[in-house]
Amino acid sequence: MNTFETRKRLVEGRFTELISRPNTAIEGNGIYERYVNPVLTSDMVPLEWRYDYDPKTNPYFMERIGVNATLNSGAIKWGDKYVLVVRVEGNDRKSFFAVAESPNGIDKFRFWDRPITMPEDIRIGTNVYDMRLTKHEDGWIYGLFCVERHDDDKPEDLSAATAACGIARTKNLVNWERLPDLKCKSQQRNVVLHPEFINGKYALYTRPQDGFIDAGSGGGIGWGYVDDITNAELYDERIIEHRFYHTIKELKNGEGPHPIKTPKGWLHLAHGVRGCASGLRYVLYLYMTSLEEPWKVIAAPGGYFMAPVGEEYIGDVMNVLFSNGWIADEDGKVFIYYASSDTRMHVATSTVDRLVDYCFNTPQDGLTTGRSVVAINRLIDKNLKTLNGCTVI
Amino acid sequence: MNTFETRKRLVEGRFTELISRPNTAIEGNGIYERYVNPVLTSDMVPLEWRYDYDPKTNPYFMERIGVNATLNSGAIKWGDKYVLVVRVEGNDRKSFFAVAESPNGIDKFRFWDRPITMPEDIRIGTNVYDMRLTKHEDGWIYGLFCVERHDDDKPEDLSAATAACGIARTKNLVNWERLPDLKCKSQQRNVVLHPEFINGKYALYTRPQDGFIDAGSGGGIGWGYVDDITNAELYDERIIEHRFYHTIKELKNGEGPHPIKTPKGWLHLAHGVRGCASGLRYVLYLYMTSLEEPWKVIAAPGGYFMAPVGEEYIGDVMNVLFSNGWIADEDGKVFIYYASSDTRMHVATSTVDRLVDYCFNTPQDGLTTGRSVVAINRLIDKNLKTLNGCTVI
Repeated sequence: MNTFETRKRLVEGRFTELISRPNTAIEGNGIYERYVNPVLTSDMVPLEWRYDYDPKTNPYFMERIGVNATLNSGAIKWGDKYVLVVRVEGNDRKSFFAVAESPNGIDKFRFWDRPITMPEDIRIGTNVYDMRLTKHEDGWIYGLFCVERHDDDKPEDLSAATAACGIARTKNLVNWERLPDLKCKSQQRNVVLHPEFINGKYALYTRPQDGFIDAGSGGGIGWGYVDDITNAELYDERIIEHRFYHTIKELKNGEGPHPIKTPKGWLHLAHGVRGCASGLRYVLYLYMTSLEEPWKVIAAPGGYFMAPVGEEYIGDVMNVLFSNGWIADEDGKVFIYYASSDTRMHVATSTVDRLVDYCFNTPQDGLTTGRSVVAINRLIDKNLKTLNGCTVI
Repeated sequence: MNTFETRKRLVEGRFTELISRPNTAIEGNGIYERYVNPVLTSDMVPLEWRYDYDPKTNPYFMERIGVNATLNSGAIKWGDKYVLVVRVEGNDRKSFFAVAESPNGIDKFRFWDRPITMPEDIRIGTNVYDMRLTKHEDGWIYGLFCVERHDDDKPEDLSAATAACGIARTKNLVNWERLPDLKCKSQQRNVVLHPEFINGKYALYTRPQDGFIDAGSGGGIGWGYVDDITNAELYDERIIEHRFYHTIKELKNGEGPHPIKTPKGWLHLAHGVRGCASGLRYVLYLYMTSLEEPWKVIAAPGGYFMAPVGEEYIGDVMNVLFSNGWIADEDGKVFIYYASSDTRMHVATSTVDRLVDYCFNTPQDGLTTGRSVVAINRLIDKNLKTLNGCTVI
């Protein structure tokens, strides 16, 4: 066994190498580029958060507080930095929020000095996760996230819990003002604050669900209003993005980060869930809504936008891609931050132009095998015309 | 970002390399050989089915119709070509059939020009998959496959569906005549047409099931008759291959492709399913039935024949091997086409001799740990005798 000093040097050396390594784009289907390395893993959480540096109390330089995963992160441009509010999950399964920043959005992410201490001057939660960040036109940066609490009336059932939408706001990402949880009829995950007022009201994307896990007969992405965000009560909730049989969103769907405003409409990133023999499969999909009426879908490209590949399939919860953070730069470049299998964070890059092109020019889901074949044949026909037209003899 | 031409060259170059790469056998347990590369992946689906080649309408050369997987394929020798009728699954989760051929059965599989347009002059299906091909002695090539339709009477439950056996026939694998779905009492997956008439009747391997996913209290591989294949109605259905507690087929089993006729009996390839903490586990197994009475099991080697290894474990539905296609050449070589984890197609090769040897000489499942140990001790005893007998001092 190595001494304290040997181990410390080894661990620090590895850490420095890991957080300094460059990332490289992988050319793919033209719609987006994946990257060779994840942008954040649990090994990149600061050593000072995990190791006791006192040789007297930690002679073996052992890890004292293990971190299990860095996943579903909100994202925001912060000055010229690309910032994630990461869901960090400890070995104890509890997650919390922590800020990490990168100079370029694709590598060299470093955590700020401390994790976020989220005020709990409301009813205490057992767990918090999956923050959606919205720089609202009211001047605040809001974080909406899921708060889980055990159902007190079912002490014998250790898995009986309730998911609510927690709300907090900040001006600096360090100090947060906690607001009361969203009041609404059903359990809620995946609640997202629209960045603009709609007729003077706050507007939310929601995902009402029957139970703690099941979307049940309800589900779909909802839309509703809140008058006073400091005492948020949801009203006029309606489903704007539905689930369908035998699609990638048969079982559940939910809004990702808040949509990006483009000249052609609001560009949305969402997740869709289906069941299979090895559990649930989570994939990402895109859709667009009207600029004037953000609750009206105007483009619905069929199928998934991104699904797990390679090592992304593997992790604490297999076969899952999830995103609740993306950043659109002023030059139109888009950084999509997604977690794979509830374990690590990745980035994919694209542009507003390409994503909007994808949304309007990918055939809509025809909902039957026959219509899928027709769509492919239509593309083959078009290509035969194009390629024959281009033939030079 | 690259231009249309740069991307087109890159994508085409990669594609050509992929569909041209050679495959190499891996020496294994002697019963069969696996191969280094899958024989078909979604990246090998023709670019003309996926990309719009017109720079005016697709300036970024982006993929327009994504393909998610190439899986459970029927197989048939077609002249001197090895042909698969592949289940191709789009990013939209709908699957359809497409023909791919190889000159040698182990690599260089190429898709024909277009996917199969399966006639729908019966009730339209939401999805079709897992075709079993049978060159029947009536002169037709039949494709039996699963057709899924949503249960109209349960509109609120998006996962409530019914699985029926679709039937189509062809002379050229391009044009298919659709026949009415099999009429029978229960839901059906994994229905396979026996290649010969039995007392002048068509004979089917079936897998009656109580529900859409669950085999329920029924299950097992069935056998039944049909008088008129153009209006197929199943009768005299009986279970010939049962499920057993604590075997690889505890939860479900189903016939793979139609059995191969050998001098010692009909050689069957099937799948068995058990449950575990990460979902269902699908493996392949063999059994044999009597030449004269194909519904009578005469050899039942214990345990699985093939189970997932390495990357085969990983995919859209983890921990799954599935086969609905194999080809026996006249020289006795056998090409077993199997999909791993509902994602990609592989080949394994063997010979009729070796597979029959395996079926008759692998100890039958004793159904308890004690009998498994007895079987091993019996083999050790035999080996001690053999090895001591051969020892030259």
